[in-house]
Amino acid sequence: MWRDLAPIGRDAGTGGYRRYAWTGADADCRAWFRAQAEARGLAYEVDRNGNQWAWRGDPAAGDAVVTGSHLDSVPDGGAFDGPLGVVSSFAALDELGARGATPRRPLGIVNFTDEEGARFGVACAGSRLTAGRLTPRRARELRDADGVTLADAMERAGRDPEAIGPDPERLARIGAFVELHIEQGRALDLGGHRVGVASAIWPHGRWRFDFDGEANHAGTTRLQDRRDPMLTYATTVLAARKKARLAGALATFGKVAVDPNGVNAIPSRVRGWLDSRAADEDTLAAVVAAIEQAARERGARDGVAVSVTRESFTPVVEFSHELRDRLAALVGGGAPAPVLPTGAGHDAGILSEAVPTAMLFVRNPTGVSHSPAESAAEDDCAAGVGALADVLEGLACG
Amino acid sequence: MWRDLAPIGRDAGTGGYRRYAWTGADADCRAWFRAQAEARGLAYEVDRNGNQWAWRGDPAAGDAVVTGSHLDSVPDGGAFDGPLGVVSSFAALDELGARGATPRRPLGIVNFTDEEGARFGVACAGSRLTAGRLTPRRARELRDADGVTLADAMERAGRDPEAIGPDPERLARIGAFVELHIEQGRALDLGGHRVGVASAIWPHGRWRFDFDGEANHAGTTRLQDRRDPMLTYATTVLAARKKARLAGALATFGKVAVDPNGVNAIPSRVRGWLDSRAADEDTLAAVVAAIEQAARERGARDGVAVSVTRESFTPVVEFSHELRDRLAALVGGGAPAPVLPTGAGHDAGILSEAVPTAMLFVRNPTGVSHSPAESAAEDDCAAGVGALADVLEGLACG
Repeated sequence: MWRDLAPIGRDAGTGGYRRYAWTGADADCRAWFRAQAEARGLAYEVDRNGNQWAWRGDPAAGDAVVTGSHLDSVPDGGAFDGPLGVVSSFAALDELGARGATPRRPLGIVNFTDEEGARFGVACAGSRLTAGRLTPRRARELRDADGVTLADAMERAGRDPEAIGPDPERLARIGAFVELHIEQGRALDLGGHRVGVASAIWPHGRWRFDFDGEANHAGTTRLQDRRDPMLTYATTVLAARKKARLAGALATFGKVAVDPNGVNAIPSRVRGWLDSRAADEDTLAAVVAAIEQAARERGARDGVAVSVTRESFTPVVEFSHELRDRLAALVGGGAPAPVLPTGAGHDAGILSEAVPTAMLFVRNPTGVSHSPAESAAEDDCAAGVGALADVLEGLACG
Repeated sequence: MWRDLAPIGRDAGTGGYRRYAWTGADADCRAWFRAQAEARGLAYEVDRNGNQWAWRGDPAAGDAVVTGSHLDSVPDGGAFDGPLGVVSSFAALDELGARGATPRRPLGIVNFTDEEGARFGVACAGSRLTAGRLTPRRARELRDADGVTLADAMERAGRDPEAIGPDPERLARIGAFVELHIEQGRALDLGGHRVGVASAIWPHGRWRFDFDGEANHAGTTRLQDRRDPMLTYATTVLAARKKARLAGALATFGKVAVDPNGVNAIPSRVRGWLDSRAADEDTLAAVVAAIEQAARERGARDGVAVSVTRESFTPVVEFSHELRDRLAALVGGGAPAPVLPTGAGHDAGILSEAVPTAMLFVRNPTGVSHSPAESAAEDDCAAGVGALADVLEGLACG
């Protein structure tokens, strides 16, 4: 399975993946999913929002057990974030067959569309639409960096953008959703575990900081006459790191846009995007407020106007405690598997409001993620498949 | 004259000019120059490097007096940087006619091509080629942001890129070159003068700082596991300001490029470009060394590799003292005009090695330059034309 999927959307220069929603690479990934479903005699369907499903048994019977993840990537992403969950789902189904286990509940595998939001800026677009957490109108008007709307991109990919929207009937048929994912951190590795179970997803959000100064000639403008927003931005970047460290939270400026971005021009404007996450919402709010205050104080000194816009916010997600405990018991062998939180958003987090949801994590020895250097050992991946098969067997065949 | 030139290459959104070498806007500017020359019965020619010339009298006679500047712009530049010098040249010629002054030396007006280097990255490309300070091979291979070479861009504009190169015979015919330019600072305004004379151009250069860290997931990577180059970059930006302030120099980070530049990705690499200038070369070298040291110290703490590449360097330019003193006496009226240095590079600086060269500056009340907010009062522009006419009359008709 990996052999066919591995080359799709891989950049020869960076070795990273560029599988963005509704591109050619995405279409190739989707064709791969369909072929895997059909090779196993699973019923294949695409829902109104473009998510792909493969079924053993009739989902209309209800109380289905569904597993899966996503196949798209961040810019220059790794091979495992997303695909490991989908590949492991098909492999776990094969393992059930090898064990001779007979599902008594419908079993589904899903590939959620546009989880990373790399192209249109909204993460988990496919599951958000399905769960009614992204309005069809707003979704259709999302634009990529070239100005192409999501509606146009779907049409070019042969989908009907007018059909997108909430799908409560589909969700009502699902009795449990389990997403397997490579861990995006080193907690399992530090504890010597191959597989773990998610407890919660930290609340997180994105804030755009606009620093507005005055464009001027870098070679002639006296320092004291400048209103240089790059200075305010730099101070804010360092403040974000410090405030996050003091609070035990995470804060990152990973994206910046500069006008006019010329070597010999003091910028008129610098925009920086803050990604911040913490174990609880109060801590997160306090960290972001402290960063904003540091930005405003420095901005006042620099003659630079600072404005902060919250572009997205996802509250804390507590996964179903019952399902979590059941998974920990099923996959632990002797001792229960470790239970750990994560700072990353997932389709499982979106679905958790409507469906009992859980996640399995597979060890990541370096903790590196969203990078071509992301890695997982073959043994650990096999352990992940085994654990997922245990879960599916326990839930659907027990 | 201004009325025809003003709308060319102006962005409706920013109000700034985008007149880049060998684009449509550039062609329109060049057509304007030719029309101005022909309307006055001046002999019009384009040299092998694409610089435009307009002559009263026969340049082959030698010892010509030439004035002029450039018509191209930085991204979203102002209306005066460059064009004021060209427009004032034609106006000063008209003024000479109104005074009934008869030139005894050939009088030329020049529009140097690609002074700002906004498209291909090398400032003063037209004058550098002519003076033999940019090799034809290197020039032809320069690329713009879309990968178009200068050679291709010239061909599309109807020029022969194989013809470019040094033009010592042309330079040998010039006895004096005077460039009028809007001041890019507030020295004249602070001193209450309309017009001044240049003493020198500060040495200046561009250095590319590459900060190489490790891409990772912004939502899951522990702070202590990160190698975030944005932190090293931010520290370097603040260090540059501080080191320049302590040395009485200038240092600016106005351009930055981030990989992969995603909101939820710790960057793998940040590139920042330093523009630095100082009154003498030793001070400049010391400032850049101090900034580099600060970058390396922080980089060691961040686990980020720092490498610094000097992309360009221009030594100090001392204009001809004889011509400078003559200009100061000619334009001063009663008292000699103020003499001041500048941090900005100019075609006059390139020519000064081969030709006695001087510059006139016209008051800039805000000091703002390389920005749509750049401005000059009508009275001051008129005073500039009068001063230039005085200079041309004194040099060519005396």
